Amino acid sequence: MLAFRDLKWSSSEKKAARKAFESAYARECRAIASKLKEMMRDDSDPRTIWHIHDYLSEQRRDTDLKYDYRYSVLIEVFGQLLNEGWLTEAELNGLGPDKIAKIKHLADFFAGRA
Amino acid sequence: MLAFRDLKWSSSEKKAARKAFESAYARECRAIASKLKEMMRDDSDPRTIWHIHDYLSEQRRDTDLKYDYRYSVLIEVFGQLLNEGWLTEAELNGLGPDKIAKIKHLADFFAGRA
Repeated sequence: MLAFRDLKWSSSEKKAARKAFESAYARECRAIASKLKEMMRDDSDPRTIWHIHDYLSEQRRDTDLKYDYRYSVLIEVFGQLLNEGWLTEAELNGLGPDKIAKIKHLADFFAGRA
Repeated sequence: MLAFRDLKWSSSEKKAARKAFESAYARECRAIASKLKEMMRDDSDPRTIWHIHDYLSEQRRDTDLKYDYRYSVLIEVFGQLLNEGWLTEAELNGLGPDKIAKIKHLADFFAGRA
């Protein structure tokens, strides 16, 4: 079995992967924006904006690390995103069945189910 | 004339100064929060949250430098806050007339009027 990092991606798979990646990223950013709006509701404390800043600093560090679009690591990235719910299985359509199986296996593994 | 940094602050002046300082700080934080709400309205771009993060990083750096509550620099701090509109002249009541005059002079100086 090829190592994840050695899999070949066809041009149609690359297109589908990019689309799924961007969808997941937009979805996670929207969730951060929602949390941000919720935090802003507590405007009694002037320092709330700095709590928001701390929160965004943390999220930015985390998402910068997580959303790594290199084909050598993309199977693992998608496995993590699927496990965390930022990506749906339906969004993997367009990838080859071998890749989908690996991604689902990793998602299960990250969830402690495999 | 005593250097700004050598002025003595009575305990009632310290109390008034602290109150004025906190009012200005809360006012500037509220303005930052308003700008933040305005920026959040553009939620078509998932990366808006990172523009907000950049904005907050800059504001935090600036306000951390500006809001320096050491009596040795407070005359200048108040002069700057008065010039920028975060502090009103009325909020300086409770300070001695010599201090108020110096603060107003500095505010004018910063505004290019003195």
